Amino acid sequence: MTTDETAALADRLLAGSTRALARGLTWIEAGGPRAEALSARLYPHTGRAHVIGLTGSPGSGKSTLARALATAARARGLTVGIVAVDPSSPYSGGAILGDRIRMNDLALDPGVFIRSMATRGALGGLCRAAADAVDLLDAAGWNLVLAETVGVGQDEVDVMRLAHTVVVVSVPGLGDDIQALKAGLLEIADVHVVNKADREGASRTVAELRAMLTLLPVPPGAALPPVLACTAARDEGVEAVLEAILGHMAALKTSGDLERRRARIAEARVLKIAQELAAEAVARPRSDAAGRLLAEVTRRELPPHACARRLLAEATTAHGGDPDG
Amino acid sequence: MTTDETAALADRLLAGSTRALARGLTWIEAGGPRAEALSARLYPHTGRAHVIGLTGSPGSGKSTLARALATAARARGLTVGIVAVDPSSPYSGGAILGDRIRMNDLALDPGVFIRSMATRGALGGLCRAAADAVDLLDAAGWNLVLAETVGVGQDEVDVMRLAHTVVVVSVPGLGDDIQALKAGLLEIADVHVVNKADREGASRTVAELRAMLTLLPVPPGAALPPVLACTAARDEGVEAVLEAILGHMAALKTSGDLERRRARIAEARVLKIAQELAAEAVARPRSDAAGRLLAEVTRRELPPHACARRLLAEATTAHGGDPDG
Repeated sequence: MTTDETAALADRLLAGSTRALARGLTWIEAGGPRAEALSARLYPHTGRAHVIGLTGSPGSGKSTLARALATAARARGLTVGIVAVDPSSPYSGGAILGDRIRMNDLALDPGVFIRSMATRGALGGLCRAAADAVDLLDAAGWNLVLAETVGVGQDEVDVMRLAHTVVVVSVPGLGDDIQALKAGLLEIADVHVVNKADREGASRTVAELRAMLTLLPVPPGAALPPVLACTAARDEGVEAVLEAILGHMAALKTSGDLERRRARIAEARVLKIAQELAAEAVARPRSDAAGRLLAEVTRRELPPHACARRLLAEATTAHGGDPDG
Repeated sequence: MTTDETAALADRLLAGSTRALARGLTWIEAGGPRAEALSARLYPHTGRAHVIGLTGSPGSGKSTLARALATAARARGLTVGIVAVDPSSPYSGGAILGDRIRMNDLALDPGVFIRSMATRGALGGLCRAAADAVDLLDAAGWNLVLAETVGVGQDEVDVMRLAHTVVVVSVPGLGDDIQALKAGLLEIADVHVVNKADREGASRTVAELRAMLTLLPVPPGAALPPVLACTAARDEGVEAVLEAILGHMAALKTSGDLERRRARIAEARVLKIAQELAAEAVARPRSDAAGRLLAEVTRRELPPHACARRLLAEATTAHGGDPDG
């Protein structure tokens, strides 16, 4: 990789090349200095897309809803990029996590781009990769960027913290709601959707969710997030969900909350990267300096705090600072 | 705080003063440079205690088991220090988290020391404080140091990773086992205990746990962790649990696995501290340099990766390096 190659790819991506976008996402997925350099170069061109986080328990029909929302958004003339960060997502279908996966009505629509992201080990690389992927779609000019996760782990909650509008999908029956509550998703949802509303108990689940929301602390005068029922597989109620999502963004803009949300997203993202850098600094191969320092800790010759500081200091200087300089 | 004060407290603690130990733990609980300096000074004197992690779902009778184990260990002439890092622990009883809490038979025994640790916010400070508290008890010469947590969150799992012997407590009924499995505790347990074995279904729970353990990957020739039933409240089966715990340590020593375990503990601990330093670097008050850098990220003037590196670089130099130098 050369800086020239990064610059050329960024230029083609900014010019609207879908091939360049797909290649860039492959870089992001692989991680490392190349991904960081590309991200740094594209970052100034981000900030135009409406980033929507979509999460819910497995079986909530999240992917079907994402597809239905994309279709509804296309009818309004909006382009839609979807990043599915669930490795078991139907988009990947166990095949190569390639460029656009052709699916149903959306297959031949150049206004829709779908990409699955594989996890990168246990060190939280998924969240960083997802954030960088969202940036690439944003920089490439997609209007709506939908980041889809299975919301059961902390990593998935962290991905949601990077969105302007967080949509949490439940299904009739209390189990999923409790799951969402436990994972801290209830608090961060901007729009609640009860999917598969043709099933028994849908209206009760809507009522229960609304009751739970009244128990959360909210700023004075703030509205509770809407709770909407839909059946994405039959395309019933999806238009109202899209309306609520776009309405949330419009409200963020008029209230001035958008700037606060952007600041919160930036902070959450930097925090996540800082923690990953810390984890990487400690998890380096045993052959190098990190291994020697850790051995000193094991032998009680170096206190753990001092070791952590030294590893971090090395990690922050190892890359020579700003990668796009 | 002066370096002299830290040195004096450390000396008294090493000389066996229980008052100095209690005061040191208060420093640790409060955190900051003073806690770090005390930890660094005492760290070379650690490594003699057998550190036992004890965890289980709320209601598993963990605290009762800890007390029963302490009584059994005292009968063998071993001294026991208990650090309860569950803020809702019965040891604290909602009162001041003070020195020794007097309880039943153990109340007047100078060979038992019990201390509750309060959480320090959401940034994972609990784990660091617990590790430092264990060190203080170790340096003060306690034979067994028991770190007790409620094993439902990642933070609690992290505390367990700092122990030589991890004891996971379940109760009859499958729910708790699944909970333990989900939290990643099944994999890290060295001894499984099914407490409240006088309840219906205890033998089935023991059998289910054993069956689950056979599904985990183990090195060739490695023994499965024992699964023991007991009723701590009636002091039934507790002696066998203590025997299994001490037997685990003996096996670590004879197999040479103890050194590997010590290395793993050192690494887990340094990792945790590094991640906390990262979180602290980002979470600093908005008025200072961190806030300005984050604002640049929000305005798309500085890429998130570059911001994370700069915040970490500042965090690692802010304290002037080795705090005990």
